[in-house]
Amino acid sequence: MAENMIKDYEFDKFENPYSNFKRSELGDKLAKFERLVNNLDIPVLIIIDGWESSGKGFVLNDLIRELDPRLHKVSVFENPTEEERERPFLWRFWKKTPAKGNIAVFDRSFYFNLMNDLNIDGDELKQAIADISSIEKELYEDGAIIVKFFLHQKEKTQKSRIDELRKDKHRSFLVTDEDEAQYKDYDKHLAHFDKILKLSNFDYSPWNIISTEDMKSASKKILGSTLDAIQDGIDRYIGMQNGGMRYIRQYIPEKRPLSNVDLSLSLSNEQYVSELKSLQEEAGKLAYALYTHRIPTVIVFEGMDASGKGGAIKRLTRLMDPRGYEVIPIAAPDKTEKSHHYLWRFFNSVPKRGNMTIFDRSWYGRVMVERIEGFAKISEWDRAYDEINNMEKHLHNFGTLLLKFFIYIDKNEQLERFEGREHKSDKIYKITDEDWRNREKWDEYIEAMNEVLVRTSTEYAPWTIIEGKDKKYARIKVLKQFIESAKEAIANANKSL
Amino acid sequence: MAENMIKDYEFDKFENPYSNFKRSELGDKLAKFERLVNNLDIPVLIIIDGWESSGKGFVLNDLIRELDPRLHKVSVFENPTEEERERPFLWRFWKKTPAKGNIAVFDRSFYFNLMNDLNIDGDELKQAIADISSIEKELYEDGAIIVKFFLHQKEKTQKSRIDELRKDKHRSFLVTDEDEAQYKDYDKHLAHFDKILKLSNFDYSPWNIISTEDMKSASKKILGSTLDAIQDGIDRYIGMQNGGMRYIRQYIPEKRPLSNVDLSLSLSNEQYVSELKSLQEEAGKLAYALYTHRIPTVIVFEGMDASGKGGAIKRLTRLMDPRGYEVIPIAAPDKTEKSHHYLWRFFNSVPKRGNMTIFDRSWYGRVMVERIEGFAKISEWDRAYDEINNMEKHLHNFGTLLLKFFIYIDKNEQLERFEGREHKSDKIYKITDEDWRNREKWDEYIEAMNEVLVRTSTEYAPWTIIEGKDKKYARIKVLKQFIESAKEAIANANKSL
Repeated sequence: MAENMIKDYEFDKFENPYSNFKRSELGDKLAKFERLVNNLDIPVLIIIDGWESSGKGFVLNDLIRELDPRLHKVSVFENPTEEERERPFLWRFWKKTPAKGNIAVFDRSFYFNLMNDLNIDGDELKQAIADISSIEKELYEDGAIIVKFFLHQKEKTQKSRIDELRKDKHRSFLVTDEDEAQYKDYDKHLAHFDKILKLSNFDYSPWNIISTEDMKSASKKILGSTLDAIQDGIDRYIGMQNGGMRYIRQYIPEKRPLSNVDLSLSLSNEQYVSELKSLQEEAGKLAYALYTHRIPTVIVFEGMDASGKGGAIKRLTRLMDPRGYEVIPIAAPDKTEKSHHYLWRFFNSVPKRGNMTIFDRSWYGRVMVERIEGFAKISEWDRAYDEINNMEKHLHNFGTLLLKFFIYIDKNEQLERFEGREHKSDKIYKITDEDWRNREKWDEYIEAMNEVLVRTSTEYAPWTIIEGKDKKYARIKVLKQFIESAKEAIANANKSL
Repeated sequence: MAENMIKDYEFDKFENPYSNFKRSELGDKLAKFERLVNNLDIPVLIIIDGWESSGKGFVLNDLIRELDPRLHKVSVFENPTEEERERPFLWRFWKKTPAKGNIAVFDRSFYFNLMNDLNIDGDELKQAIADISSIEKELYEDGAIIVKFFLHQKEKTQKSRIDELRKDKHRSFLVTDEDEAQYKDYDKHLAHFDKILKLSNFDYSPWNIISTEDMKSASKKILGSTLDAIQDGIDRYIGMQNGGMRYIRQYIPEKRPLSNVDLSLSLSNEQYVSELKSLQEEAGKLAYALYTHRIPTVIVFEGMDASGKGGAIKRLTRLMDPRGYEVIPIAAPDKTEKSHHYLWRFFNSVPKRGNMTIFDRSWYGRVMVERIEGFAKISEWDRAYDEINNMEKHLHNFGTLLLKFFIYIDKNEQLERFEGREHKSDKIYKITDEDWRNREKWDEYIEAMNEVLVRTSTEYAPWTIIEGKDKKYARIKVLKQFIESAKEAIANANKSL
């Protein structure tokens, strides 16, 4: 068991190496660091959590006093709103993660629910910690500097602070239910916080415990610790820029799922026509049932250029109510998207309960086009498989129905389709120079795609390979798979009612 | 008085020139048009409104059946959510306006509240119509194709449709309060809808009244009318691309506010130091009072490069609680932002009630840098003054405290500051080649800035010119103006309690 974090904390031995500095000196220095991280394009995330009425507002104000307000953003996280409850837990936090070169300060954070729920335990606790560790780790590995503070105070200090607040007629409305709960039972909360802090005291994002018995001293400690953390982060960043350690991949390709795809599978026109309509009707009804069951659905389409993703999506959605789904075509990230972690834009567009989002290409670009074109470094795309699995697990745990289709065609078929399109006036817009360039790297793409299919086929988010040479066969298979999975999801939902 | 729109509507004379087409033929044609507008980068907005239970879902499904789901997005507007009620009325609609080349379909829209509120009248009605006309007109003038449908039905048809819904145990939950209200009093609603339709039957976005007595016929009419509207819109677009009519500006510069700025105004160090702290404390308290009064605040900073905007913002916010404000530095739009109307990104970031957003540069870029660098055509930036006034009026009507500061320095002062910055290691990052280039166009900028100050100084959003040569004087003046305006806003809010 790890050491205690705040249990048996010796307030009187609280050491503050920054006590000889003036607060404003530390603040001015932080302002310089803010400009530096801005120039170096390093994102910084500062989390301030702690007891109720422990002075978060005070230290927060002191922390940012000298900073340039254009370069940082403070976000307050309280109980999730209506809209936030409709989305997976991490959604609202991912949205507010800092852009490169900016500082995000979180007043409370993803620890909010965890700290407030004294009864959380077992799998639920494990999952919450795993979710939090994933977002912190992924930001850290992307170069972010993460600084976490927990504000700690003695029982009698907290009681007197809450009493004071209650007496102040202008501010008594600020006393929350949480204040009341902690006031009533300090020890129980102390034990709970200690447990949570231990579980989330990660190497890449350790906690700084700050005594706020003396607010001014606490402010200095927070400023000083932030300076130290940023200094370390800049060193790490420069190391990363210089290549860091030589990166050695562990992956040994054994299975190659795309070697065994039976492209001869096909349907006659008669079979296709006779099945299509009724499958579409069923898909439409199931989409509605997913809506009434408030099950969010995410469908990913990947595959070669010209493999028929668009056509398959069109057939799948044809009899679905358009008010319930959205198709998002994913192209290269724009400037804003590039200034964030690559998962940021995808987290931003996850569907709310009952809705469906279909991604025409997706986060798998990280381990396909970005890998092959060198937009991501080896270490970056090699760790992306885990990051992607984490994200998909997070969606799954929220109750999302997650379907991933990989449509496969061979090189000859692609050539025929490219040439065919160039002769069809209404399809010529679909062929770009980039498509021809990608084609030259066919073998590299096959290699990358095989790895995707092996490393990201999980129990909660398996891939379905679609034999794409016969478009009719492909479209029917997509429809059938959707129908099967949707039925299963609805049956599971009914069971748990 | 304009002609009746739906009062005395002769259902039996409902003409449908598209009745001889198959629905799927019209749908296929629309799919071709969808690709065409996508290639031409034209945004399309289709609004479907009408009586409750008039078949909006049915025609909507028929409308998009053949379309490529990657190129359009359906948005449903019902009663605003918690988050939406915290923002000005148009916020949620602007967010969903189509990007260039995309089709947005609104199931209900900004007409929702208006149609449902039988008692709306007088100034409130006038303002709502003005708001709606502004968004439709601005999108239209930006090249968007706007198609509006109102679904109409006979009283007995509506009654039987609602009765049917009530009887269906799987769908009876879909009967809304509005259904009940319209069921009870058809005539009153008929008169009200007729009035609203008349008032919003704009030349640039007229209503199409569609009888849904026969649903299939209605679907064809909607598809056909959409095709016609898109055809017309493409013609108009091509005309606009070819330059359209020669554009003649009406503006005659008479006043030149920047000619009379007294740059000798200054403060001694002693005066500055003695005033600054207490003004900042007062500003901090007032920001908190704005928060408790739930007054949203928007502050715009414009001015020459190196005029001291950043420094003034920093002094203004120094003792404000950072959880209540956000500073947004505005740079050139990124790809996503460029694919929308230029006001889109600003509407997206208006503050919610009680919060403050400070724009370091703003929508005024349209009539300054975009004007001078030729990023906007003359007709585009010349109409932007009205568009900006409309937007600011909209914010004002929502109760927003709106402050606009223009910090002025002369050409020599700017040169000194540029040179000074190049010798200060911690400020050199602030000078770019672009700053030097802008400087070469000094006179053009002065001309444009004068026009801004004349044409967008309104009663509800006046400019405050800040004499910027002495930074101390400038910062104190900004603080004092904020304090004065905030006090006034709070006093007004207290009065209306």
